[in-house]
Amino acid sequence: MSPAKKQTVTALAGGVGASKLLLGLYHAMDPGDLTIIVNTGDDITMHGLKISPDLDIVTYTLAGIVNPTTGWGIRGETFHFLKRLGTYGREIWFNLGDRDLATHIHRTDLLAHGKTLSQAADHIRTSLGVKSRILPMSDQPVPTIIETADGKIHFQEYLIKHRTEPGIKAIHFHNVKHSHPAPGVLEAICDADKVIICPSNPLISIGPILAVPRVREQLRARKESVVAVCPIVGGKSLKGPSDKMMMQLGIGSSASAVAKLYADFTGTFVIDRRDAKQSSAIEALGMKVAILPTVMRTRNDKRKLALALLAL
Amino acid sequence: MSPAKKQTVTALAGGVGASKLLLGLYHAMDPGDLTIIVNTGDDITMHGLKISPDLDIVTYTLAGIVNPTTGWGIRGETFHFLKRLGTYGREIWFNLGDRDLATHIHRTDLLAHGKTLSQAADHIRTSLGVKSRILPMSDQPVPTIIETADGKIHFQEYLIKHRTEPGIKAIHFHNVKHSHPAPGVLEAICDADKVIICPSNPLISIGPILAVPRVREQLRARKESVVAVCPIVGGKSLKGPSDKMMMQLGIGSSASAVAKLYADFTGTFVIDRRDAKQSSAIEALGMKVAILPTVMRTRNDKRKLALALLAL
Repeated sequence: MSPAKKQTVTALAGGVGASKLLLGLYHAMDPGDLTIIVNTGDDITMHGLKISPDLDIVTYTLAGIVNPTTGWGIRGETFHFLKRLGTYGREIWFNLGDRDLATHIHRTDLLAHGKTLSQAADHIRTSLGVKSRILPMSDQPVPTIIETADGKIHFQEYLIKHRTEPGIKAIHFHNVKHSHPAPGVLEAICDADKVIICPSNPLISIGPILAVPRVREQLRARKESVVAVCPIVGGKSLKGPSDKMMMQLGIGSSASAVAKLYADFTGTFVIDRRDAKQSSAIEALGMKVAILPTVMRTRNDKRKLALALLAL
Repeated sequence: MSPAKKQTVTALAGGVGASKLLLGLYHAMDPGDLTIIVNTGDDITMHGLKISPDLDIVTYTLAGIVNPTTGWGIRGETFHFLKRLGTYGREIWFNLGDRDLATHIHRTDLLAHGKTLSQAADHIRTSLGVKSRILPMSDQPVPTIIETADGKIHFQEYLIKHRTEPGIKAIHFHNVKHSHPAPGVLEAICDADKVIICPSNPLISIGPILAVPRVREQLRARKESVVAVCPIVGGKSLKGPSDKMMMQLGIGSSASAVAKLYADFTGTFVIDRRDAKQSSAIEALGMKVAILPTVMRTRNDKRKLALALLAL
């Protein structure tokens, strides 16, 4: 496929699922023309450290230092710190690698000195040589809280400590009504030639970004330029617990179920060939449908999907 | 030598130099009868982390996990965190090992949650199985500031960043007049059968402890029971820059120079055989002199000196 024509792209992203496509885009276009708005609902304070898992996954991926096996953390990472932390009776279910810790300590100290999360994220990505802008969805903490039969827990507890085992009853984005889009977020959606919704969990990766005041309205205003890549293929999540969570919340686990969640602001909905039968149901929601190979296993898969999206 | 008779001991200590003797005491007596008051003038906040070098050196030594080559840090330590921290443009002259970091993060988080430095130190030493009480000299920060020809710098900058190269003009213990002895410090000096001043730097290890209000007065009240082990042997420091600093401040670098600094509160001054000629000069200051092998190289040296001190 030939190189994409010059255009500016803004992508909405969660963590591991999104990063595959982002890596494809990063190499298929001028990375300086790419802006990424990242979910921070996953953010958590552990042992006094301000941890932003999705920001770090995206940054490490584009910096070329991510652990290729897990999709998070740093390649060749060690966990000497975490093991010893357990000696002090602290909870160690959240993985904190020795190298990764440098990012958390740097960010925590910047925030303690009055910098914003946006400023910290920008310093981290430029320090690591990432040429695309990486914006948190908001500079205010908006923790994703999962309501289970046993009570409310932070999303990271649900995901890692409890391995997504508790049945979920509802999802809350704490204090989201009082949050503001981080500087540049609305402008990036408004000004880009194309807005891409990455194949991330629609409930707890894209959902929190959409819940920040004025973001969804700004996307609606750009509907014709918004392209959403479906994270559910053949009824299953490409990555993570999207399918299970959608089933438990009664939304159903299918491409068209995701399409319904995005219909008000998406112009083109991208599905995999194996979901082609759902095209007419999705078109009936008022969107165009593009059928593309959305399952990215190799570097070439990522680049091919990116080029196809840029060509839409 | 036979085991020492049952007695309670309170030791005043700096870091590496003191720890050799403390390890001897720990194994020569019931460690539950030993209380250690530790210099915190070396404490520094780096990257938002509350670091207490001497508390950690003493704790790691008695816990049996100290790096035996350096006398500080943890055996088999790695520095992956620190290397990556440099990527973010941060100063990395202060060594922060991956395992060691667990102590700093644990302490910083306890302090952030309203615990005192004493409480943090006690939790750390009990978590690591240390049976002796380890008390910081004060719960208030009293940073040691070195005045050089080029300006005032924190002691750690002088020691590590500048490798003790700048000539020193004066030493200040910042805010010490407004500090208080940590809970238990005065009682430990008052109640112990014996008070031992470890062979630490008299200026920047023992000096800060003595400068905390009421500590020196409390030691004077126990003069007959105070035994000080001289850290200068044959005119040279057993460890660290004591000799150089004493010369630069015009105090001179000799056993009797140290004796003068301690004369008001010390009953017995312990010198090495090679300084025996200074005995009468030291006795003239109003102290008894004990001549003992104070150079500790092996585990047995440490135990022998400890037993001899306990037998005084």
